[in-house]
Amino acid sequence: IWSELKPFRAPLILTILIELFGTLGYIFIDHFSLMDAIYQTGITFTTVGFGEIAPISPMGRLFTIFLIVAGFAVFSYAVGILVDVINKGRLLSLLKEN
Amino acid sequence: IWSELKPFRAPLILTILIELFGTLGYIFIDHFSLMDAIYQTGITFTTVGFGEIAPISPMGRLFTIFLIVAGFAVFSYAVGILVDVINKGRLLSLLKEN
Amino acid sequence: IWSELKPFRAPLILTILIELFGTLGYIFIDHFSLMDAIYQTGITFTTVGFGEIAPISPMGRLFTIFLIVAGFAVFSYAVGILVDVINKGRLLSLLKEN
Amino acid sequence: IWSELKPFRAPLILTILIELFGTLGYIFIDHFSLMDAIYQTGITFTTVGFGEIAPISPMGRLFTIFLIVAGFAVFSYAVGILVDVINKGRLLSLLKEN
Ligand SMILES: [K+]
Ligand SMILES: [K+]
Repeated sequence: IWSELKPFRAPLILTILIELFGTLGYIFIDHFSLMDAIYQTGITFTTVGFGEIAPISPMGRLFTIFLIVAGFAVFSYAVGILVDVINKGRLLSLLKEN
Repeated sequence: IWSELKPFRAPLILTILIELFGTLGYIFIDHFSLMDAIYQTGITFTTVGFGEIAPISPMGRLFTIFLIVAGFAVFSYAVGILVDVINKGRLLSLLKEN
Repeated sequence: IWSELKPFRAPLILTILIELFGTLGYIFIDHFSLMDAIYQTGITFTTVGFGEIAPISPMGRLFTIFLIVAGFAVFSYAVGILVDVINKGRLLSLLKEN
Repeated sequence: IWSELKPFRAPLILTILIELFGTLGYIFIDHFSLMDAIYQTGITFTTVGFGEIAPISPMGRLFTIFLIVAGFAVFSYAVGILVDVINKGRLLSLLKEN
């Protein structure tokens, strides 16, 4: 099972990097508390989007759009890898049978 | 049609487990009513994210992030399986023709 | 190009049916205006989730969860078909070359 | 790496066109400021959905639904292409081995 999880290492690391980057961004741009910054990043790049936990400035809003796009890219990538992992087994067994 | 639905049993069970887990979490951590806890879980792990139905504590917000990530994983898994089921028919017919 | 769009007829019809069903639901359960019901359905089953446009009752909230799940199913189905359509061309050309 | 990024040119251009279209729409229909229009478009077509940054009229709400549907189509298309790009490498190597 470990080798099957290996392809997910890259999206997992990217997700953690985005969470870190977003948290630092909200702290520096809009002086969020650490907890608020973690939460705002988490609900933003996952597109849950409860709303703005604390006021976000125009600069912070541009940062937010960047965060969303980065999150989308990583999420699409993760779905792509998942489909690939599932397909791999399927293809291998189909080609062997034929 | 029953055998085609079989691969969706796992994501369906996982979805119900997450809904249960989230409901219990909001009741114990932030003393939500049963109805509010069901609704908050439902709009959170599906990323609809209307907002916080009742006040959520810092502990509850960390729980919320966990719920979102778990929901994402199950959703990606379900999409992957769906793509796989659609592909299976396609691949079988293509390989037989060739 | 018409025959390539044909596989999308089913998800398109399902999307319109969900939009209709949701609109009727919000009108009957929570006495939404037609415009509010259309908007609430649209932002709910697509998981955009701006929030509750007008107050939603416990019954309406259960209906909302059902709407989200139905929307998810149709969206996953549409993505699966899209991936399938793109793959079909790829597979055909690869198998012919080999 | 450049040739691998080439299939993403179409969804990238479509995303920029939607962002432009949405921004112009909110400015003309509901007299949003440029910054608000950019932000409202960004959080809407990505389904993040923090909420209505400034009041949106019935006409603007119909426009919003159109924006969401267009965003969904482009996002599904991008995921489809990504899956295709990942699959291409896989298929090529599998068919060569067999
Ligand atoms: K929201
Ligand atoms: K949302």
